[in-house]
Amino acid sequence: MSPTITAFKESPDRGRGLARDMAVRWALEEVGQSYDVRLVTFPEMKAPAHLAVQPFGQIPTYEDGDLVMFESGAIVFHIAERHPGLLPDHPNARARALTWIFAAVSTVQPPIVEFGMAAMLERDKPWFEARQPLLEQAVRTRLDQLAHRLGEADWLDGDFSAGDLMMVVVLRRLGASGMLNDYPSLLAYVARAEARPAFQRAFDDQLAVYRAVSEA
Amino acid sequence: MSPTITAFKESPDRGRGLARDMAVRWALEEVGQSYDVRLVTFPEMKAPAHLAVQPFGQIPTYEDGDLVMFESGAIVFHIAERHPGLLPDHPNARARALTWIFAAVSTVQPPIVEFGMAAMLERDKPWFEARQPLLEQAVRTRLDQLAHRLGEADWLDGDFSAGDLMMVVVLRRLGASGMLNDYPSLLAYVARAEARPAFQRAFDDQLAVYRAVSEA
Repeated sequence: MSPTITAFKESPDRGRGLARDMAVRWALEEVGQSYDVRLVTFPEMKAPAHLAVQPFGQIPTYEDGDLVMFESGAIVFHIAERHPGLLPDHPNARARALTWIFAAVSTVQPPIVEFGMAAMLERDKPWFEARQPLLEQAVRTRLDQLAHRLGEADWLDGDFSAGDLMMVVVLRRLGASGMLNDYPSLLAYVARAEARPAFQRAFDDQLAVYRAVSEA
Repeated sequence: MSPTITAFKESPDRGRGLARDMAVRWALEEVGQSYDVRLVTFPEMKAPAHLAVQPFGQIPTYEDGDLVMFESGAIVFHIAERHPGLLPDHPNARARALTWIFAAVSTVQPPIVEFGMAAMLERDKPWFEARQPLLEQAVRTRLDQLAHRLGEADWLDGDFSAGDLMMVVVLRRLGASGMLNDYPSLLAYVARAEARPAFQRAFDDQLAVYRAVSEA
């Protein structure tokens, strides 16, 4: 039986693959696991049935038989642990890949989300312009450090892993800002990941959802 | 051989156990694993030797033989996987515990850190007071959802696990704000965790570092 994930019925990113189901779709494509998608509206996400699965009213969730999970980082690691293709074999290297998944969602992502949320929620506030340099600098600090660590390597630690997958998903949220243009090595890193056939399949699938809904 | 972690030589929290080494110390105490601590100053954290271990210039790190890790969530899960005491036996329940570790650091923690950072970095800005309700509401949304999920249970999912450990570490960052006082069940949840002997040992050890340095 295939697992079932949830995704936005009407994604606010208009099919750019920035919603958090993208990481899970991509991981499932990388390991060749088929899956079903249950689309949820915003009201449905805040209703008791969804909150029983995802207490914070978000997507994605992951249901596989008796197992119910949320948090894209946890789901990606779970998929990677149970199928070959997204984690190295050595236990130490697997622990380091988990380190990079956490680094993506808990160290690199927060200033990126904060920057994006300010643009969405505080654009009309009198302080918006004055705060922009603070928000940008917080993102750039992380990008500087990440670019320094990546160096001239293709991936963060050996072969492509679940850690790279999660980091690229997080970096892609910067897309429209153009901020990555100042970091050629990170831009190439993201492009290298986006060129993977599994990324393309996942991207096309989430875009098809957006198109079907917006044309309906 | 015991693992070695890094911690602040002069913790900005003045020994209140809010620095990120606390989660790792606590996890090691829960499983009864002794460890060594290497204290680092702020300049040392930004120097090449530390950046080689922790590319974002933070603490804690975890070194055990050939293994070098960072990210407290990843380290706590690594410790929990390799010793009995912090994860349930059933694979599904272990996956859910990892979900809660991620929920702590990537869903509950960001608005708490944002609230705390504004108080530290933007207190003298003209917009500080006007933004406080926005920042508080973002924290309260997560606390409402977490309290709703916890209900009348002692812990988030069955027995105390690494997921509770990480969530409590995150909630403790709200201490000085008094915001938890509006959530009696979360206050009791944190108190229940703090009463664990392993928490007390970890807390006392980090406090001893702060006292030794500040009296030196």
